[in-house]
Amino acid sequence: MNELITLAHGSGGGAMQQLIQDVFIQSFSNTELDKLEDQARISLPALQLAGNRLAFSTDSYVIDPIFFPGGDIGKIAVCGTANDVAMSGARPEYLSCGFILEEGLPIAVLKQVVQSMADTAAQIGIKIVTGDTKVVPKGAVDKLFINTSGLGVIPQGIDYGADKIQPGDQVIVSGTIGDHGATILNLREKLGIEGNLSSDCQHLYPVVAALKNIQGVRALRDATRGGVNAVLHEFCSSSGCGITVSESQLPISSQVRGICELLGLDPINFANEGKLIAVVTKEDAEDALAAMRITAEGENAAIIGEVNDQRRVTLSGLFGGTRRLDLPSFEPLPRIC
Amino acid sequence: MNELITLAHGSGGGAMQQLIQDVFIQSFSNTELDKLEDQARISLPALQLAGNRLAFSTDSYVIDPIFFPGGDIGKIAVCGTANDVAMSGARPEYLSCGFILEEGLPIAVLKQVVQSMADTAAQIGIKIVTGDTKVVPKGAVDKLFINTSGLGVIPQGIDYGADKIQPGDQVIVSGTIGDHGATILNLREKLGIEGNLSSDCQHLYPVVAALKNIQGVRALRDATRGGVNAVLHEFCSSSGCGITVSESQLPISSQVRGICELLGLDPINFANEGKLIAVVTKEDAEDALAAMRITAEGENAAIIGEVNDQRRVTLSGLFGGTRRLDLPSFEPLPRIC
Repeated sequence: MNELITLAHGSGGGAMQQLIQDVFIQSFSNTELDKLEDQARISLPALQLAGNRLAFSTDSYVIDPIFFPGGDIGKIAVCGTANDVAMSGARPEYLSCGFILEEGLPIAVLKQVVQSMADTAAQIGIKIVTGDTKVVPKGAVDKLFINTSGLGVIPQGIDYGADKIQPGDQVIVSGTIGDHGATILNLREKLGIEGNLSSDCQHLYPVVAALKNIQGVRALRDATRGGVNAVLHEFCSSSGCGITVSESQLPISSQVRGICELLGLDPINFANEGKLIAVVTKEDAEDALAAMRITAEGENAAIIGEVNDQRRVTLSGLFGGTRRLDLPSFEPLPRIC
Repeated sequence: MNELITLAHGSGGGAMQQLIQDVFIQSFSNTELDKLEDQARISLPALQLAGNRLAFSTDSYVIDPIFFPGGDIGKIAVCGTANDVAMSGARPEYLSCGFILEEGLPIAVLKQVVQSMADTAAQIGIKIVTGDTKVVPKGAVDKLFINTSGLGVIPQGIDYGADKIQPGDQVIVSGTIGDHGATILNLREKLGIEGNLSSDCQHLYPVVAALKNIQGVRALRDATRGGVNAVLHEFCSSSGCGITVSESQLPISSQVRGICELLGLDPINFANEGKLIAVVTKEDAEDALAAMRITAEGENAAIIGEVNDQRRVTLSGLFGGTRRLDLPSFEPLPRIC
């Protein structure tokens, strides 16, 4: 199998039909997709049982390299969008999938990515129900990009939102920070750090489900590009509050800490692909923490800070000092997801 | 305004927040999008009134050049996905939007594309409710690619499907064929043909709505990449039937006919961006044709052929002869949409 993707695979003609059958249907097969109509048709009554609002999200994935320790572009494309849906409280149920392929891409590479998507989707219990494939001439795109859009239903009574955050609320992270960013940095910059460095790419719905019955949850957001720091800034901006984070409480693996010290970088700015930030009322924070820690995906959860009325993000350091955390104005690592 | 897109615009940090506010919110603003959560939250009760199945579709847009007579990549990105949703019988209601931008793209170009999307969406009555932006280093993508995914509700009692097509059914096209493909070919190959050559990029829901009360409609599909010919082959493949098309009945503008004669190409293989094929029972075909012709988008609709039991696509020529139509095995025009 040394076959390569050709422009004919994106033409709408016979080669494309063959590719759809041999690669996509082969891996993704389900009732909705197999109809091969231009749109999936999803039964609404099944959705209505669960609640009354639909969560709808989209992300494009352009990560380089496409395979890395802990995942690949396909796994990220499924988990990333599923996680964006899940942050509303919804269980992710359906995904669309759009591929942009570079002419000359080995079909074996595409199959490996597609199978990874199928395996991840099956594990999460999500169906890939509609798709699209474009092929562009060599040089017009780097290897392959994937867009996924996701759907789920928000359970009745749940209405998380960054605008609901109030002073006194506690800030919880669901596990170690910076793993994904450090892994990609190590690969791309050829730092050559060996050992257990691995992306945290994973679905987060189990953590969200664990929080479902805790009344005091105000807001959830997964910390991807821009790291935990970006989410803290978004929360402050939406709520008009401030957040102080305690440096000593941040869960960081020794490998990630090592890379950061080597390069003088801050893991709070590093991308994650399987961590969320929860803001919870002071009364319910310990319950929320305990619920998160019961899940495999949230076993290293920690309370890392508190909301205040200062309208800025502050880091209280190991030796008692505090400093204002700004958002980095430049891009340390493009194509991180 | 000579500002250019930088990698920082895709970093998740301050520059990205600024871009989202200044460009996307500025043009797309609506209740769902303005919340700036990672997912749009769509009220299901509003959807439930209309029916019981959701139509969900996705497409990526990679067209080159990004501006052309009759449209641009933004207009196509809205109409194309809206049309895929509409082919189920659903009125397209919500879109997601994912941008992949090349470092160095002028922000003015992005704004022009985004405004075109906003204008088209407003005209169609569709809301762009969630989005994503990635920036990749210069050379990793050509200018900008857009993915849109769309949602709508299929009215109760409507269940179009290519598998429902039967011998004797009539094949109707909603207007002149090949306009989009000929326009892009003329631009890209610098054929220099002047005059009224223009893409047919338009939304098709008005044509679909006109067919809503006609019982005999079996299947609808918009004829994009691969042209009318690709749709005819898909219909034959899904139904196990054959289709004979009459060459003299195909509506073709004189400009498109001229380009095809010049180059020895067949307009039945040319892409469209605003034409659909409807398959309708013999009894209801004239009613369907009349209903389509009342709409501005379907005023040149024509019955072009009939379904048979031959399992192949056949063209009956101007002088009485017939020939089998195969799908082109090579790609005459990459990046057509």
